[in-house]
Amino acid sequence: MFDFTFHNPTKIIFGAGKEALIGAELNAAGITRVLLVYGRNSIVKSGLLDRVMASLKAGDITCSQYGGVDSNPLLSHTREGVVLARRDKVEAILAVGGGSVIDESKAIAVGALSDTDVWDFFVGKEVERALPVFTILTLAATGSEMNGNSVVTNAETRQKYNIASPHVYPKVSILNPELTHSVPLNYTAYSAVDAIAHVIEGYFTKKPGTHLQDRLVEGIIKTVIETTDLIMAEPGHAQARASFMWTATLALNGLTPAGIGEYSFPNHMIEHAMSAIYNIPHGAGLSIVMPAWMKWYAAKNPSQFERFAKEIFGLDSAAAGIAALEQWFVTIKSPVRLGEVKIPAADIEAIAENAEGLARQWGIGGLYTKETIAEILRLAV
Amino acid sequence: MFDFTFHNPTKIIFGAGKEALIGAELNAAGITRVLLVYGRNSIVKSGLLDRVMASLKAGDITCSQYGGVDSNPLLSHTREGVVLARRDKVEAILAVGGGSVIDESKAIAVGALSDTDVWDFFVGKEVERALPVFTILTLAATGSEMNGNSVVTNAETRQKYNIASPHVYPKVSILNPELTHSVPLNYTAYSAVDAIAHVIEGYFTKKPGTHLQDRLVEGIIKTVIETTDLIMAEPGHAQARASFMWTATLALNGLTPAGIGEYSFPNHMIEHAMSAIYNIPHGAGLSIVMPAWMKWYAAKNPSQFERFAKEIFGLDSAAAGIAALEQWFVTIKSPVRLGEVKIPAADIEAIAENAEGLARQWGIGGLYTKETIAEILRLAV
Repeated sequence: MFDFTFHNPTKIIFGAGKEALIGAELNAAGITRVLLVYGRNSIVKSGLLDRVMASLKAGDITCSQYGGVDSNPLLSHTREGVVLARRDKVEAILAVGGGSVIDESKAIAVGALSDTDVWDFFVGKEVERALPVFTILTLAATGSEMNGNSVVTNAETRQKYNIASPHVYPKVSILNPELTHSVPLNYTAYSAVDAIAHVIEGYFTKKPGTHLQDRLVEGIIKTVIETTDLIMAEPGHAQARASFMWTATLALNGLTPAGIGEYSFPNHMIEHAMSAIYNIPHGAGLSIVMPAWMKWYAAKNPSQFERFAKEIFGLDSAAAGIAALEQWFVTIKSPVRLGEVKIPAADIEAIAENAEGLARQWGIGGLYTKETIAEILRLAV
Repeated sequence: MFDFTFHNPTKIIFGAGKEALIGAELNAAGITRVLLVYGRNSIVKSGLLDRVMASLKAGDITCSQYGGVDSNPLLSHTREGVVLARRDKVEAILAVGGGSVIDESKAIAVGALSDTDVWDFFVGKEVERALPVFTILTLAATGSEMNGNSVVTNAETRQKYNIASPHVYPKVSILNPELTHSVPLNYTAYSAVDAIAHVIEGYFTKKPGTHLQDRLVEGIIKTVIETTDLIMAEPGHAQARASFMWTATLALNGLTPAGIGEYSFPNHMIEHAMSAIYNIPHGAGLSIVMPAWMKWYAAKNPSQFERFAKEIFGLDSAAAGIAALEQWFVTIKSPVRLGEVKIPAADIEAIAENAEGLARQWGIGGLYTKETIAEILRLAV
């Protein structure tokens, strides 16, 4: 165990139909004007937007709407959102969508209270304040509904960078698992990969010996696998969708790394570089990177990889555990090779160069150079 | 999974020497006058009180001291604390001690802002506000440092009752595991029993099928057993003390029951009745009640008891799992029979009658009557 501070003030309201409470929650926080941020038209077609607007109206809350968030949210769209938030003098951002919508909403919340360009905060400027963020989650995956992270892509510079700040934890996040029943199975698979990726970064890159945290991670991974298998067989499996949703939240809310000391996010680093260049789903990128990285990294922490194999799959060797995870990704139809998402091997150098910039920013440039990142990616050809 | 709200706003600061931050944390919250509540002289002798006072002085915080909290905190002492808090117009309560000190501090925090007797809140009056509570934890066990519970004993009426309110979550809790190195092994054992008791109540009495929460509980129990065994062999085992401390916090901070639906606290109910009459340590009472209750209850939820045996001890039957837990309590020298704490079998009726009052208050009077509680207790003779 290492020193840590844990402070996660987000209020989670979990259950069917709970989006009807959003007006009352905003009222309780004294908020009268919001910017409602969303992605594509699915929340219009499904009727969710109408239900949310009805709740806002009942709470006498003025609402500006701002749709069109991309699945890898773009800086350009974020900047426009900042302009809107300022113009309409909103007091809070209400994100209705998945992790991308929430991430962009957090960035808008930061930009709205700043005099400088919002991208400054992604390249090192410290966040000192933000508008309060409220969320209604429609896709379980990124954990953004209960953490202080925001990832946005600068298309001009091809940088997919992040903010991590206590000021952008959502005040209230409403998790209605029924909203996820219609998530297509390919995106459900990518979400499962993402949740697993969130917990294995710390699990494998920390120092050994923090068994409580190991067990929390193993419980999360086993539940992700179990519930995803149930959903693949029956997409409307209510219990599995609900359990999956809460598990994905716990996978990146600060619980599993508390006390583990230093660790790093190499898989996310490489994937961010990939999806900054190719607009592929984050989870699809991760299922390609993870088995490759695990093969490359296993010898640096053999006991933990053996533990993983035994606890998750009941297998006897690190290699067998990695192979089992890769095979599970294949089973749920998430890609495991670059070619499956049409990234040619010839582009590895460009991805590695992009990732190297992130490695330096994240303080792991010693281990992760252009050369070693390329070596990892070649294991995914 | 069932609907739930999870909102745990307590900030945890974990690590050696972190009590030195208390002045700064109170400053950050704008607090200038506190009532410092503690138990016996051990925090004076150990130098902890001096270190805390130095931090308060550096933060220019006025402090009234109030010692003498009992291990089963008494209503009479709580009432005196309320008088002091009002007299000195304190803006916060600072608890320095274990769960008893924190529980009494929460009650004082409620009483200080109320016109009526503080006991009213233990027998049904709703808590609407409380002074902010800050804690420096010296004994890992009750989880009070990160939850909204407070248990106080009314010696006149022999009632050990509780408050559960969002208003009494500590604002900040400082967990320095080094402060627990000197906890005697018998109290360490009682703490281990308490932490296990906190998670098994929900684990066994909920409806089956919430596997994520099952796995979180199993991870907590396995870690409690593993770290307690290490501490018994080496009381100053820093890693084990640290891991034990955080595990005990997670055992009752709302994480494990989130989503499990209805459940009950029969073991705590019976133990509260026991220690309301006999002033025995809470954990010692629980290690007597738990195996008896498990033997009595196992047939009502056989698959979960089989799961417990397999996951925790690698055993094949419910009965073997219960026997293994009881045997482990014996190994760590926590009592498992009433006679070990000098409660005669003839007193079972009186305990059962007291517990029946709690059962009604907690809404489980259907299953737990004077007769069934006596039946359970007879299994501990």
